[in-house]
Amino acid sequence: MSNKMWGGRFAEGPDAALEAINASIDFDQRFYAQDIRGSQAHVAMLARQGILPEADARAIAKGLSDILVEIEAGDFKFSRALEDIHLNIESRLAELIGPSAGRLHTARSRNDQVATDFRLWVRDTIDSTDKVLAGLQTALAKKALAHAGTIMPGFTHLQSAQPVTFGHHLLAYVEMVSRDRGRFADARARLNESPLGAAALAGTGFPIDRHATAAALGFSGPMRNSLDAVSSRDFVLETLSAAAIAATHLSRLAEEIVLWTTPQFGFVRLSDRFTTGSSIMPQKRNPDAAELVRGKTGRVIGALIGLLTVMKGLPLAYSKDMQEDKEGSFDALDTLRLCTIAMTGMIEDLEPDAVAMKKAAGAAYATATDLADWLVRELKLPFREAHHVTGRIVGKASSLGKALEELTLSDLQEIEPRITDAIFNVLGVERSVESRTSFGGTAPANVAREAEAWQKRLADEASSR
Amino acid sequence: MSNKMWGGRFAEGPDAALEAINASIDFDQRFYAQDIRGSQAHVAMLARQGILPEADARAIAKGLSDILVEIEAGDFKFSRALEDIHLNIESRLAELIGPSAGRLHTARSRNDQVATDFRLWVRDTIDSTDKVLAGLQTALAKKALAHAGTIMPGFTHLQSAQPVTFGHHLLAYVEMVSRDRGRFADARARLNESPLGAAALAGTGFPIDRHATAAALGFSGPMRNSLDAVSSRDFVLETLSAAAIAATHLSRLAEEIVLWTTPQFGFVRLSDRFTTGSSIMPQKRNPDAAELVRGKTGRVIGALIGLLTVMKGLPLAYSKDMQEDKEGSFDALDTLRLCTIAMTGMIEDLEPDAVAMKKAAGAAYATATDLADWLVRELKLPFREAHHVTGRIVGKASSLGKALEELTLSDLQEIEPRITDAIFNVLGVERSVESRTSFGGTAPANVAREAEAWQKRLADEASSR
Amino acid sequence: MSNKMWGGRFAEGPDAALEAINASIDFDQRFYAQDIRGSQAHVAMLARQGILPEADARAIAKGLSDILVEIEAGDFKFSRALEDIHLNIESRLAELIGPSAGRLHTARSRNDQVATDFRLWVRDTIDSTDKVLAGLQTALAKKALAHAGTIMPGFTHLQSAQPVTFGHHLLAYVEMVSRDRGRFADARARLNESPLGAAALAGTGFPIDRHATAAALGFSGPMRNSLDAVSSRDFVLETLSAAAIAATHLSRLAEEIVLWTTPQFGFVRLSDRFTTGSSIMPQKRNPDAAELVRGKTGRVIGALIGLLTVMKGLPLAYSKDMQEDKEGSFDALDTLRLCTIAMTGMIEDLEPDAVAMKKAAGAAYATATDLADWLVRELKLPFREAHHVTGRIVGKASSLGKALEELTLSDLQEIEPRITDAIFNVLGVERSVESRTSFGGTAPANVAREAEAWQKRLADEASSR
Amino acid sequence: MSNKMWGGRFAEGPDAALEAINASIDFDQRFYAQDIRGSQAHVAMLARQGILPEADARAIAKGLSDILVEIEAGDFKFSRALEDIHLNIESRLAELIGPSAGRLHTARSRNDQVATDFRLWVRDTIDSTDKVLAGLQTALAKKALAHAGTIMPGFTHLQSAQPVTFGHHLLAYVEMVSRDRGRFADARARLNESPLGAAALAGTGFPIDRHATAAALGFSGPMRNSLDAVSSRDFVLETLSAAAIAATHLSRLAEEIVLWTTPQFGFVRLSDRFTTGSSIMPQKRNPDAAELVRGKTGRVIGALIGLLTVMKGLPLAYSKDMQEDKEGSFDALDTLRLCTIAMTGMIEDLEPDAVAMKKAAGAAYATATDLADWLVRELKLPFREAHHVTGRIVGKASSLGKALEELTLSDLQEIEPRITDAIFNVLGVERSVESRTSFGGTAPANVAREAEAWQKRLADEASSR
Repeated sequence: MSNKMWGGRFAEGPDAALEAINASIDFDQRFYAQDIRGSQAHVAMLARQGILPEADARAIAKGLSDILVEIEAGDFKFSRALEDIHLNIESRLAELIGPSAGRLHTARSRNDQVATDFRLWVRDTIDSTDKVLAGLQTALAKKALAHAGTIMPGFTHLQSAQPVTFGHHLLAYVEMVSRDRGRFADARARLNESPLGAAALAGTGFPIDRHATAAALGFSGPMRNSLDAVSSRDFVLETLSAAAIAATHLSRLAEEIVLWTTPQFGFVRLSDRFTTGSSIMPQKRNPDAAELVRGKTGRVIGALIGLLTVMKGLPLAYSKDMQEDKEGSFDALDTLRLCTIAMTGMIEDLEPDAVAMKKAAGAAYATATDLADWLVRELKLPFREAHHVTGRIVGKASSLGKALEELTLSDLQEIEPRITDAIFNVLGVERSVESRTSFGGTAPANVAREAEAWQKRLADEASSR
Repeated sequence: MSNKMWGGRFAEGPDAALEAINASIDFDQRFYAQDIRGSQAHVAMLARQGILPEADARAIAKGLSDILVEIEAGDFKFSRALEDIHLNIESRLAELIGPSAGRLHTARSRNDQVATDFRLWVRDTIDSTDKVLAGLQTALAKKALAHAGTIMPGFTHLQSAQPVTFGHHLLAYVEMVSRDRGRFADARARLNESPLGAAALAGTGFPIDRHATAAALGFSGPMRNSLDAVSSRDFVLETLSAAAIAATHLSRLAEEIVLWTTPQFGFVRLSDRFTTGSSIMPQKRNPDAAELVRGKTGRVIGALIGLLTVMKGLPLAYSKDMQEDKEGSFDALDTLRLCTIAMTGMIEDLEPDAVAMKKAAGAAYATATDLADWLVRELKLPFREAHHVTGRIVGKASSLGKALEELTLSDLQEIEPRITDAIFNVLGVERSVESRTSFGGTAPANVAREAEAWQKRLADEASSR
Repeated sequence: MSNKMWGGRFAEGPDAALEAINASIDFDQRFYAQDIRGSQAHVAMLARQGILPEADARAIAKGLSDILVEIEAGDFKFSRALEDIHLNIESRLAELIGPSAGRLHTARSRNDQVATDFRLWVRDTIDSTDKVLAGLQTALAKKALAHAGTIMPGFTHLQSAQPVTFGHHLLAYVEMVSRDRGRFADARARLNESPLGAAALAGTGFPIDRHATAAALGFSGPMRNSLDAVSSRDFVLETLSAAAIAATHLSRLAEEIVLWTTPQFGFVRLSDRFTTGSSIMPQKRNPDAAELVRGKTGRVIGALIGLLTVMKGLPLAYSKDMQEDKEGSFDALDTLRLCTIAMTGMIEDLEPDAVAMKKAAGAAYATATDLADWLVRELKLPFREAHHVTGRIVGKASSLGKALEELTLSDLQEIEPRITDAIFNVLGVERSVESRTSFGGTAPANVAREAEAWQKRLADEASSR
Repeated sequence: MSNKMWGGRFAEGPDAALEAINASIDFDQRFYAQDIRGSQAHVAMLARQGILPEADARAIAKGLSDILVEIEAGDFKFSRALEDIHLNIESRLAELIGPSAGRLHTARSRNDQVATDFRLWVRDTIDSTDKVLAGLQTALAKKALAHAGTIMPGFTHLQSAQPVTFGHHLLAYVEMVSRDRGRFADARARLNESPLGAAALAGTGFPIDRHATAAALGFSGPMRNSLDAVSSRDFVLETLSAAAIAATHLSRLAEEIVLWTTPQFGFVRLSDRFTTGSSIMPQKRNPDAAELVRGKTGRVIGALIGLLTVMKGLPLAYSKDMQEDKEGSFDALDTLRLCTIAMTGMIEDLEPDAVAMKKAAGAAYATATDLADWLVRELKLPFREAHHVTGRIVGKASSLGKALEELTLSDLQEIEPRITDAIFNVLGVERSVESRTSFGGTAPANVAREAEAWQKRLADEASSR
């Protein structure tokens, strides 16, 4: 069957393979609300500008509203032969109101229409993504406040480095997510310009008012170049980049949850709500959700790279390749949302084992830096010399099978005679974390203050939404 | 609700977010046939080894056959609460035959089961992919034979370089696709080992016969290390790499079709079966299918990179991240198949405009190399000097606004006095392509011979399938 | 040889393979200026806070200045055994001023030091990138103004769609580059926080003033969480994302230059400055620079994906994997810079062939939309019906081998009797582009106004730098 | 300055930006040996076919040999103005032997020349890569044999699942690397066809003998289509895919080394040769080499994705974009080599802590599957029921704070009265691993046999090289 909308010149119908590869209705039906919103703004403007008779405009507007109801009720029958959401809706409109439906497409094209729909959809999705990311921050900040003083090992190279607090560790992710939200907000501001009225690529001779449609759709204004308006997809690429970076952040926290819940670490426990069992090993408690959050980073990165590949070397203006902008984006942004929600649930759910954490924090000579700093502060050694002295002390402790605080004063004085027993004040993990009072440091008072500030900020934000 | 299969130790049901992120039944139901095939082989072996009573084995085998019928008839009800295809089938088996269904999972685990299913599925998919790639080669070879002597410009840097024939150009893709098929065949051979019987990760103490199940499933033998068997996904990565490279080849041909169908090139015409129109510009004949084949390269590459990201840094043995191996692979291999079929249709459909091609082949001094070669052959100039002389002749022709064959002998002799009028024999495009008789060169006789050889080889292959 | 800086506890020197894989001095020496800048800020603050004796601070500051001079003069000897730029400089400092050099590293770590260096370097590089991108915009806007009325075909699907002006086409890229600059500016603002003073990961007990060092280095303030400060590389990922998107934009323009310079299109000509020849085909004028700009997109995308892969699943805080953040970033940002400069040169260099462009603009029924719009405007046909009527007219013209404006009135009236000869006013390409006066449309007056506005804005920006 | 080789028609020299973006000599000089090898084969064939006078051929062959000596002695001066390795060598040849140097380029082009060079280089590199991968297998197999019976926890989801042996775990990687080598071998066989004589793209009219040059260069034969010969880079893509997958395997082992060397796991110890210290924390022993091997996966994947991006949508034949095939490939294959060597060193170096491993293997109810299997075997419970019973037993042990083997018979019988004290035979970890005698299972006898077989096979291979 010849396509109803553009078939005037075509003698034969499309080949089955073409139809299969070409039709987008299976996925772009997801734009139905945005498509109707855009058409409503367009038709109202056309009437106001005298391009369309008022009566037609009213009929079209009514028809579109009815179609929205039909779709949301599940009563709309999408057709692959009608290719995409735009033609599906327009065709149904013609059934409902007759030939005047054909006036809706005056002074626009599918090229500016789909660009408008997609910008609106991405904008909506950024807003909902921001909300779940804020939810994750809230869960992190709350848990951080509860554990502002819970001591755990701070790792570098996954080796114990210096004691930190669990709250401090969680707040690091609050900061990362904050920048993720900033990236989405910047992407949103940059994409929030209206392509509507660019028509196929060159603009139009009809006396349309693009500022009006832009305003009606909540855009900050119309895009300034019609070719750019229909050809550019950097708004999607930027949004996918933000998503890929955010997914990477989630993957790091997920990796840590996987590590922390091993019997070897034993730092946190997830409840049954966030663990699963094994079909063969009855004792297993697997942190599946954390593993999936970690693994799903792959598909978000894949979607970004996929669209970069599509756009590489594509001449202006619209090419059909650009239809490939949607499915990957839907999948990536749905995935990020699901992962964020799952991670929020895990953070709320997890309970640290403070005893195990503290024990680990004290192992492996983790306060050696405190010892070196004492040598600098009290004996005025240059840091490098203090570092060497400390290295020798750690070596001695290691060969004696002792922790640093188990060394005797004479053990220490054999290596550096000026050491006094005041040094024992800095070798415990509580004292170590308490001493880290520099701005942004892990001292529990710092951590509590930051966690509270974040909680307040997030609550204020939420209440002003 | 607590999961029926592994819920023994779990007090609460999984969180909704966990269920949403964890369930794979929405996509892994695609393995149903492979899963049942694997279970049939397993249960037959268990009985033969005396691990299972014959009666139970018969009941299980019968139940599995019935389930296969139910699924293929669309009567099977998949349940998200049962997570995956394995548990869905086993649960239905229990409904059908009672508690002895629980004996099927003896001496195996979901870990070796899913690895088996996926290998079988990839193997099946490679086979069907090979078939459509052979179909594309057949279409290319046929068209190449028909146009073994149809002259077109050969391009480098998209500038006319030397005349070639259209058949020669198409045969280049037959070669590329041949290597693509070779890559899939190598991947198939390498993956064709059975993980079944590796159990969870360590093998089993039951006296199973892994060689028997491997043989029953058409594998070349069992994998030699149980940890490797459940942990490795390089077989998917290799298959996706082959797919990504093949998609890149298709994208190059697609780009050429897009170029060739422009009014500027006008080299080929696609029928209505492979072009689409515009919602606003009634005159358009858009090569949508070619653009989509080109663009869809992105998602295939994206799937490859997605899974590489998943597997990077994953400790042995099975981690849940690896569940992410499926959806991207399904999408990528479906996409490659669809693109190959669409490309085959376009190749069959397209008709070259031999006049336009030949005219373009002669433009832009495309026989300058023939001229230079004549200087080498006849005047014994070193090639580099011949190249410089030719450059000056082209420069002169260009400033006179003439083609090479329109220059007079005296024009030529002004630059190189020893030139004779024998040179005019090599300046025409027919003579140029005819002269390229080196092995693999574009001489029409070469091209026809190659095209025929390919046709024969492909026909032999097809008849021996 | 044991490493001088951290070798206290190590009995043997590192294995050759470890040294080869570990040493970063071959590439991170590029940070020398940033490293010294950071150390100067740190030592001044240490002195001001009384952590370091004034005399030591003065000696260190002097030594660092001398080292800067040595490096810039090429007199500095970098050593692989000293691993990285930090230890190379500190070691040289010790040679110059003796053991008090060892006081410089008080209250910091290589972890916060390298994060500081890298942020400073990315910030500097964003600034220089912004400058070359502005240069490209300037070249585009200037050429656009010169060709505000030069008519060319506007393409969709690389098929002639509607006439546009060459100036309009170039301005589309000015808009894209503008958003690219916006992305870099946002990345710059977000990264412009100081990690210095986060020390290894936990902050420090020394009474440092992180606000002071932040201010001295031009940061907006210190980062608020010490773990985040040393663990995060999203600032690089975001910058690489901006680079990848910008490279994609350049690749699209490069593709167009490759197309436009083919004999088939013949729309623009590049001078000898931007074309190269062939070693075998003397007539070739290859647009190598455009091809390379297009191709080099690959390495920029590769660098992005490379670092996303590195960061995926990495637990906090610093892991050595993160050393992989540099080489790819250097290469990608150098590449973008070189491509932008090459593209600027090509835009300045290229000369359109206005006659060829206009001829192409009129071919292929490119004013069919104008005809359809006339039917809507004058005969009040619904757009869809007008589109069908136009389709039939195009079909007729095509079968008669005529252009639209070559049809007779009776040809037209056979299809739609109400058509009058007023229609011939809209079928020419000049009239078509002139009519597209909607905001952002291609009407030459629009284009000239936009080009001038951009020129002014860019000049103002440049003068206020 | 005008380029000496193709400058005949060019009035001005190339722009500085063009030269900077265009010149490849900085990296393709790495092909010098392959380039000279190819030229030697070409010139010998030209003489044999009578295309070149013998005297010229001898002079050229001598000159090329001299140049090889110059380059290897470091006496050759590479010039950027001469663009690439081909023109640098040819230009030097002209200096050495005069104008007859210009006869070398008869019947070939840089297009087939660079394709030949690159195939030779990739082939050489695959051979050296294969050797280091075999070295890694050898180290793994040797360590595996030494630890065929060393018990460690087998993990799934990084939770203890079932005991395995350390040797078994290492042999899993021997299998993976074996497939990696298989992929490289397949890529090698597929690329080992000669493009030489395809000339620019169309073949040549000179009576060359491509079979002869192919044989002289160790190719299996000439490529069958001249356009394909100069246009295709799938041989690089396939090699990079193999490298990316191999790097992923290394990253997994690297991740495990990072985990195993944490104080929490404490499974293995690396000597000072493979650990590094901290600039601030004197006690640190960081597994830097393992982290770098893990991180460097990113650049290998990046190189693959970079070249896929380059090749996507590129029309035939040679385009300059394809010059981007080299740098990423050099870097990726160098990286893989370095990582393999570093990993081999680490495997040789690492020493497991058998006591710690065994203790961990017995924790977390890791023999629960053995218990379930006992119930199936001895009490004839269906596996699913046995699994549920075991789940309840584990739950009881967990609430009593006991290991499975610490439960009393009456504890067990409360849950399943038919259990006898024979069950205690299967609850120890030694008994568990010994029982896994299925093909590929972890039983120490299996592992020793496999490790020995691998050692023999690798030694045989090495001696037959």
